[in-house]
Amino acid sequence: MGTTLAALNAAPAADFVASLGAVFEHAPWVAEAAAARRPFATVEALFAAMREAVDSASDARRLALLTGHPELAGRAARSGDIAPDSIAEQTAAGLDRMSEPEYARFEALNAAYRERFGIPFILCIKRHGRASLLATFEARLASSAEVERRTAEAEVMRIAAIRLNALVAGDGPLATTGRISTHVLDTVQGRPAAGVALELVEYVSPTETVLVAHAVTNADGRTDLPLIHGRPVPIATYELRFRLGDHFRRVGPGMGLDLPEPPFLDVVPLRFSVGDPEGHYHVPLVATPWSYQTYRGS
Amino acid sequence: MGTTLAALNAAPAADFVASLGAVFEHAPWVAEAAAARRPFATVEALFAAMREAVDSASDARRLALLTGHPELAGRAARSGDIAPDSIAEQTAAGLDRMSEPEYARFEALNAAYRERFGIPFILCIKRHGRASLLATFEARLASSAEVERRTAEAEVMRIAAIRLNALVAGDGPLATTGRISTHVLDTVQGRPAAGVALELVEYVSPTETVLVAHAVTNADGRTDLPLIHGRPVPIATYELRFRLGDHFRRVGPGMGLDLPEPPFLDVVPLRFSVGDPEGHYHVPLVATPWSYQTYRGS
Amino acid sequence: MGTTLAALNAAPAADFVASLGAVFEHAPWVAEAAAARRPFATVEALFAAMREAVDSASDARRLALLTGHPELAGRAARSGDIAPDSIAEQTAAGLDRMSEPEYARFEALNAAYRERFGIPFILCIKRHGRASLLATFEARLASSAEVERRTAEAEVMRIAAIRLNALVAGDGPLATTGRISTHVLDTVQGRPAAGVALELVEYVSPTETVLVAHAVTNADGRTDLPLIHGRPVPIATYELRFRLGDHFRRVGPGMGLDLPEPPFLDVVPLRFSVGDPEGHYHVPLVATPWSYQTYRGS
Amino acid sequence: MGTTLAALNAAPAADFVASLGAVFEHAPWVAEAAAARRPFATVEALFAAMREAVDSASDARRLALLTGHPELAGRAARSGDIAPDSIAEQTAAGLDRMSEPEYARFEALNAAYRERFGIPFILCIKRHGRASLLATFEARLASSAEVERRTAEAEVMRIAAIRLNALVAGDGPLATTGRISTHVLDTVQGRPAAGVALELVEYVSPTETVLVAHAVTNADGRTDLPLIHGRPVPIATYELRFRLGDHFRRVGPGMGLDLPEPPFLDVVPLRFSVGDPEGHYHVPLVATPWSYQTYRGS
Repeated sequence: MGTTLAALNAAPAADFVASLGAVFEHAPWVAEAAAARRPFATVEALFAAMREAVDSASDARRLALLTGHPELAGRAARSGDIAPDSIAEQTAAGLDRMSEPEYARFEALNAAYRERFGIPFILCIKRHGRASLLATFEARLASSAEVERRTAEAEVMRIAAIRLNALVAGDGPLATTGRISTHVLDTVQGRPAAGVALELVEYVSPTETVLVAHAVTNADGRTDLPLIHGRPVPIATYELRFRLGDHFRRVGPGMGLDLPEPPFLDVVPLRFSVGDPEGHYHVPLVATPWSYQTYRGS
Repeated sequence: MGTTLAALNAAPAADFVASLGAVFEHAPWVAEAAAARRPFATVEALFAAMREAVDSASDARRLALLTGHPELAGRAARSGDIAPDSIAEQTAAGLDRMSEPEYARFEALNAAYRERFGIPFILCIKRHGRASLLATFEARLASSAEVERRTAEAEVMRIAAIRLNALVAGDGPLATTGRISTHVLDTVQGRPAAGVALELVEYVSPTETVLVAHAVTNADGRTDLPLIHGRPVPIATYELRFRLGDHFRRVGPGMGLDLPEPPFLDVVPLRFSVGDPEGHYHVPLVATPWSYQTYRGS
Repeated sequence: MGTTLAALNAAPAADFVASLGAVFEHAPWVAEAAAARRPFATVEALFAAMREAVDSASDARRLALLTGHPELAGRAARSGDIAPDSIAEQTAAGLDRMSEPEYARFEALNAAYRERFGIPFILCIKRHGRASLLATFEARLASSAEVERRTAEAEVMRIAAIRLNALVAGDGPLATTGRISTHVLDTVQGRPAAGVALELVEYVSPTETVLVAHAVTNADGRTDLPLIHGRPVPIATYELRFRLGDHFRRVGPGMGLDLPEPPFLDVVPLRFSVGDPEGHYHVPLVATPWSYQTYRGS
Repeated sequence: MGTTLAALNAAPAADFVASLGAVFEHAPWVAEAAAARRPFATVEALFAAMREAVDSASDARRLALLTGHPELAGRAARSGDIAPDSIAEQTAAGLDRMSEPEYARFEALNAAYRERFGIPFILCIKRHGRASLLATFEARLASSAEVERRTAEAEVMRIAAIRLNALVAGDGPLATTGRISTHVLDTVQGRPAAGVALELVEYVSPTETVLVAHAVTNADGRTDLPLIHGRPVPIATYELRFRLGDHFRRVGPGMGLDLPEPPFLDVVPLRFSVGDPEGHYHVPLVATPWSYQTYRGS
């Protein structure tokens, strides 16, 4: 249900606002201000105009922009009484699948935050894994009102940028996406390892993981698509797990490699953390039945 | 409470048998036969004599050698009604700390095995981790009587070899020990990484691990002692976990390295399997804040 | 001065032959036969038709195809009395820049070969470095007439394929090109190493090298173009030489890395051999001031 | 023809001086002063006493210590008119095998240095390769008289320390030796690569090398002895060259590895520079037929 920059440039102001009014939650006035600044050559230029509208707005309006935001996993979210985009974002973050104790914890954090700073806790949750979300919440609770006001506004901008990119196709999209990718090289044969099953898991706590993606390497030793792409990479610790043992069980006999059972290397885990959601994380596996290496590649 | 080969060579036959009578469970006649063959130049020669005594014994005696063995985690073991060495071995394997369901499972396996083959299930448990022990038990249940008879005798010999090494100091000890060791190299500085905390865990099931050893690397980037040594390395899948992130947090600033938080690499897991309990497994970590490699070294 | 497959399909037969008559040296009849088989959907199909014309030609004509070929670095070549394509090919291989002794050696080899097999020595020299060319020449001198006849015909086809690709643009070009490429990764910083000067040399003898290409890595740690591409990679031993020391002299101080002078690693040589001229040889350097690795990548 | 610290502690002063009088060239008074300070618990303590004798000597005597030194590759050296130790040291450095132009260059440098600083150029040549020796000579010519006086005294101490270690066996020897060592690991098989021929060459100029050592790896993938040990490692750029291709030609077929000819990797060169003659340089090769890595190990 997106549109194009060209269409928006040509549309009546009312339609423009109808399309982009929800980019800033409960604040169609931002889109209205931007409508008057058309045409825009790029999505970036359009976003810059919306940002300026916010920056030049009255303090009351800017504060309303924050107070208008729903709490994370708050009552409004549970009852569906928030903007559709917020529902989608919180659902993606798994905030609709929390246990009662988890909800209770969020309720307590939300209450403490609102009590302390007079605004809801605002975070661009698409940029955080579950563990990072909670750690960030607690860290920000210990911050100052002034810093939190600025931080909340910055997070509102991040949320808006992602929403705008999703709504509008055009030149100069906003840089809101990162990537996790891999490839597997078999240095016994000196060629890409095809048919290697692998999975990417996220540590949602020091001991629990959830499956993020699984794939099998193609003839180039790569996955047909990056494991995460087209969105921010949530800040988290991840582990790639490669079924390397199966690969050499399959190709080894053909090469006459006689390998022990169990093999020295079977499932190979590569554990790494992402701190830059808009970064590209290429994490290859260069391996033999007895050795392997990885590095942050490009 | 061991003795020396020299002392055994010089001792009265009765004392010799008193010292070594328990090497083969409930079968002092093996030691008696060996006593008559003294003196022995090496522990290997002594063991060879005991092995010959068994090989040349009547089928009835050899069968008794098997039937005399206690079951793993069996009633006898639980009531302490087995040879002290067996108690120690089963305790080391954690067979005295199993849950009721685990006991029940062993009881069932023991009963099925005895029912099927007419002898107790005999395994040199010091050479197996928990997962391997159960997998081996089930695999052997599906074997043939003839093969199992030979396998059981081979296991009795392995058990006896370890007991003999523990009892007798002298030249030419039996090869019953393996080793897991590591070292950490910091290739940003081009020198061993000192002060790196690491732990070795064993996978007792596909998802559960138990801590086997922990250490901190010394000035040579090594642990003062191998993580496992002086005994067989139980057949199992292991994981070494290195606190690499802490190392670079410590040395990085001094080098002016400015690293992200969370770091790309924090706890680095190296997962590998041991199939040869008498083998040497040197598993080093050669690392920077952004890359690492490992291999089975020497 | 090339043309397109579409144009050739539409052209009068005479023009078609004028364009492709030189693909098989002194044998326009091959193009004539192919002209009658038009149209061709791909360059491969066109080449298949030419190959069939040769295969179905009389033995006399096929022999003439071989005898019509100029000798390598022979008198004809030196006097320019050979087809323009042959001049270009021999020049590219440096056969026009040989010393008198080298010429003499080729004269001798040519004479011995013609004496022995009754045909000139034919080799697709674009697929061979200087050392390989001489080694191949000597090896083939020791071969049998029957094998050499087949080998010579196969080489004629390789030469023709390269010429055809150069002359005709269109779908389904022939696979006649290989590639040597590299990239440099700095695993102290966890990112591509930009601005690294490197050169590629070919060993023309066990001790002499000639410079093939030089480049400086770009922001992606790659060279803007592969070091060899768009042509066969001559069979030879190559060495990539990277000015790694200069890179860390440049970036090290900014990182606070304090490195010795001379540095442990300064110019890093990676020596490798190419046996498959149509292969892709990606030879990266993954390095710190104290370590590096390479592998045949993809 | 060395002696022991114990013997020297017990010897008459005259014998002590006879043994150690040549440690400082043409300056037996240093040994005389030390003789009066006996007994010494360690060689280090003995050397400290000799150093103190020099430090507390008159300026004239200390200057004489410098002027008494022979020039490098000077007339005295060529005519053998210098102390035996100096002959041996200069011979080891190849200064007796220089070409006429090289001699001429040294003569000129020596003259310019003596002219400028009034003392001969003094350098502990055992710590320098040929290229470093010349570079150092030229660099020091550009230095100041004050700095050169201190540098010359420091070099005299280095020369004396090496001579003393060679003459006297005892506890606490002086740290005057470094090491270059290697090992080769075959990560296709996951074990040390035995029987790999390798050589160590020194770059005596940017383009010329001289063979320093050659060896074949043993069953541990190591050389029976370090390639350089028991002496300072001359400051120089070195290259280790491993016949890796031969190794995989030998073991590959047994493993069913089917490798191209020429192999991708045949002779693998590892080039590195030594800046610390008393350092330990362990430079391993961890390799497959298609990849390898090295690092400064421990």
